[in-house]
Amino acid sequence: MSERESAIEWSRTHQDAALDDLKAILRIPSISTLPEYSPEIERAAKWFSDTLRNLGCESVETIQTDGHPVVYAEWLKADPGCPTILVYGHYDVQPPEPLEEWESEPFDPQIRGENLYARGASDMKGQIVAFLKAVEAIQSTSQLPVNLKFMLEGEEEVGSPNLTGYIRKYKENLTSTVCLNCDSGIMDPDMPSLTYTLRGLAYFELRLQGAKSDLHSGLFGGAIDNPANVLCDLIAGMRDKHGRVTLPGFYDDVRPLTDEERQEMVTKPDSWWLEQTGVPVLFGEDDYTAAERATARPTLDVNGLLSGFTGEGSKTVLPAKAMAKLSMRLVPDQDPAKIKKAVDDYLSKNAPPTVSWELEDLSSCHPSISERDSASVRAATRAFEAVWGKKPVFQRQGGSVPVVGIIQELLGVESLIMGFGLPDDNLHAPNEKQHIPTFYRGIETYIHYLFEAAEE
Amino acid sequence: MSERESAIEWSRTHQDAALDDLKAILRIPSISTLPEYSPEIERAAKWFSDTLRNLGCESVETIQTDGHPVVYAEWLKADPGCPTILVYGHYDVQPPEPLEEWESEPFDPQIRGENLYARGASDMKGQIVAFLKAVEAIQSTSQLPVNLKFMLEGEEEVGSPNLTGYIRKYKENLTSTVCLNCDSGIMDPDMPSLTYTLRGLAYFELRLQGAKSDLHSGLFGGAIDNPANVLCDLIAGMRDKHGRVTLPGFYDDVRPLTDEERQEMVTKPDSWWLEQTGVPVLFGEDDYTAAERATARPTLDVNGLLSGFTGEGSKTVLPAKAMAKLSMRLVPDQDPAKIKKAVDDYLSKNAPPTVSWELEDLSSCHPSISERDSASVRAATRAFEAVWGKKPVFQRQGGSVPVVGIIQELLGVESLIMGFGLPDDNLHAPNEKQHIPTFYRGIETYIHYLFEAAEE
Repeated sequence: MSERESAIEWSRTHQDAALDDLKAILRIPSISTLPEYSPEIERAAKWFSDTLRNLGCESVETIQTDGHPVVYAEWLKADPGCPTILVYGHYDVQPPEPLEEWESEPFDPQIRGENLYARGASDMKGQIVAFLKAVEAIQSTSQLPVNLKFMLEGEEEVGSPNLTGYIRKYKENLTSTVCLNCDSGIMDPDMPSLTYTLRGLAYFELRLQGAKSDLHSGLFGGAIDNPANVLCDLIAGMRDKHGRVTLPGFYDDVRPLTDEERQEMVTKPDSWWLEQTGVPVLFGEDDYTAAERATARPTLDVNGLLSGFTGEGSKTVLPAKAMAKLSMRLVPDQDPAKIKKAVDDYLSKNAPPTVSWELEDLSSCHPSISERDSASVRAATRAFEAVWGKKPVFQRQGGSVPVVGIIQELLGVESLIMGFGLPDDNLHAPNEKQHIPTFYRGIETYIHYLFEAAEE
Repeated sequence: MSERESAIEWSRTHQDAALDDLKAILRIPSISTLPEYSPEIERAAKWFSDTLRNLGCESVETIQTDGHPVVYAEWLKADPGCPTILVYGHYDVQPPEPLEEWESEPFDPQIRGENLYARGASDMKGQIVAFLKAVEAIQSTSQLPVNLKFMLEGEEEVGSPNLTGYIRKYKENLTSTVCLNCDSGIMDPDMPSLTYTLRGLAYFELRLQGAKSDLHSGLFGGAIDNPANVLCDLIAGMRDKHGRVTLPGFYDDVRPLTDEERQEMVTKPDSWWLEQTGVPVLFGEDDYTAAERATARPTLDVNGLLSGFTGEGSKTVLPAKAMAKLSMRLVPDQDPAKIKKAVDDYLSKNAPPTVSWELEDLSSCHPSISERDSASVRAATRAFEAVWGKKPVFQRQGGSVPVVGIIQELLGVESLIMGFGLPDDNLHAPNEKQHIPTFYRGIETYIHYLFEAAEE
């Protein structure tokens, strides 16, 4: 029996213990959004650092930040030349409200059918525990074939405000070959999948000011410009009717979809998009499917508009101010900083002298892509195949996971996004769950992955 | 001594009594916005109907509406062929708040310097009383040379909600040669002026709907259209950067400014507009001065914008809805109904199939113009000249006075807008006042006007 087979067998005979350990950490309400739960956050951090120490990790530390701590650990005893995998996860969870909609207590894990119900079961204590159980199975039967570094944060659910600072400070310790981000899922219990791209984000608030205060539109209208009209002009000039962004240079760095990618992409039919949203017709660039437009193409969307009088009835005000929240979803290899410059340049050139303007950078994140023929994706593909008997499908996701972009930018390594949640796991909602058979398959997939990664 | 001279002399010897009468009606707090003041509204209506009866008027009635009553009266004993003047006024006033900023009680009229301070002193009890005192002076010394009908409403300060209904119902009784609207003023105590045009208004709320509820911009952006972006597109397409409205047919009925009008218009210099508003530069059609653009040219202004997330920070929402308050100031001879159709047609043609839209008509009013060589304007000009020793300047006003448009539309008569307020009278504000010498000159000007009107 190979080392790998021994580990798989060990994991199969220790499934109940794995589930018990998952239940144990799920009983700690490590809610990061609420200050009164700080002691629970500390308990959860301690639970993971103790577990990592028991797995033979070294340099296990709970590193304080301006917010909740990061749990760091490393195991660096693999053969020279073996890859070093940086494992990213978060041990904090969303608040459970509304409580009355839970069928069992959110922090008292309960099994119903094939699922384990609790806050954090899928997002993402279940995924970290699955990975740790894979490590335990290997360590209990042989020895890890790769080096590992763990970086588990406690603030993902509040936007990871201190992660960038932490990574900058400890950059030297975090050098690695690839980052494994376990905060993810597959498309279906019978359809293993790998997310290989995420869109980035450039989110701004654009504020225009005309007169020093609101004016009477009868007395001043025609002689004084209206910042709300100007805002509409400026926004209209940024995008055409097919959703194509018209900011100069916007598409310069967009990596085209390859024919192979397009063929392999698992896409939802138009009817799905129409049903989900209730729109009369779909929208966007003619040359792409809806799924491609929502995942592989950049966008420019107004997220909010505010100006003047918005109450009931008619008030003849000529507003002094107008504001738009405006964001662009970015795709590889667009750079939020270059995009900000494109917006700035556009405004400098097109904003009329009748108003002053201000563009505030509210949030940004790099898009990310794993090369589909990279070592880590090849290793993951073989691991999925070993457990499911079929290759994973490749998924592009339209949303953004800032940490992936941060790690790419600061550490220069790609992320392999590989986890075992399911689309109906009720993330951030009542009755969050983890599908138990998928959790067990996840453990085995991670075992295979670690051995496959060593072979690349 | 002519009849006119006798009336002027009578008015001069009865100035104190005129001021006392004005004080008497100013003591009645006829605030139309507050239901608890209804008895005071009734008292004010009674005060005016008693006064009109004492002047020899007939058919004096306090006519109930769904809101506050209209005081109607007529004096129709002039020679056949003499004009019939419909005198419009309102006996209601604005609330006095903020009370702490008044130097004397708002409903206890006090003289300080050349001014009488009280709520309603200028807007517009002072103007109605001046006219009634002119009538009294004539009736006390000879007899009115023209027919008069009075229509005094009690709801002007709440937007005249029942005036249209009243006029429609009593249309037959209101036939007249011209309407004298006393709810106005002159530019300066030494600069008599006549407002000869008012802009009209077409005010809409435009509502767009895309998806049935707000969406995540990461998951759906690119495949589903954004009603806030569409709103910006649609609004941007309605106006060019010079403020010229680009709705097809919008300017078809705009009466051009004549060279004579442009020469005679009293205009404020650019520096005034800049100081008043604090804008960096003025705005609008190159071929017109700021004053012309704000009074003699139509506009299209956004009065309000609302969509999506407008709080602090960044929320990546793809809004389901977007709303704009949108209004056009109209000039003679534009018609609000035709303008609404132009907006409707534009939206039908340009709104994309990705959103549904709804255009609600919130408020509209016809623009108005008095022909400057009309009988009434000629008569008023000579009246001003007789009192001030100089001709009045002609004023276009950029705002809208709905009643003028309503009377034009329903009764088919023009309004002569002639009153004796001053720009610094603090209308709708604390320490409202009437300049007493201008009040007395107003009485004399009205006397001259009534005799001049008979001679046209």
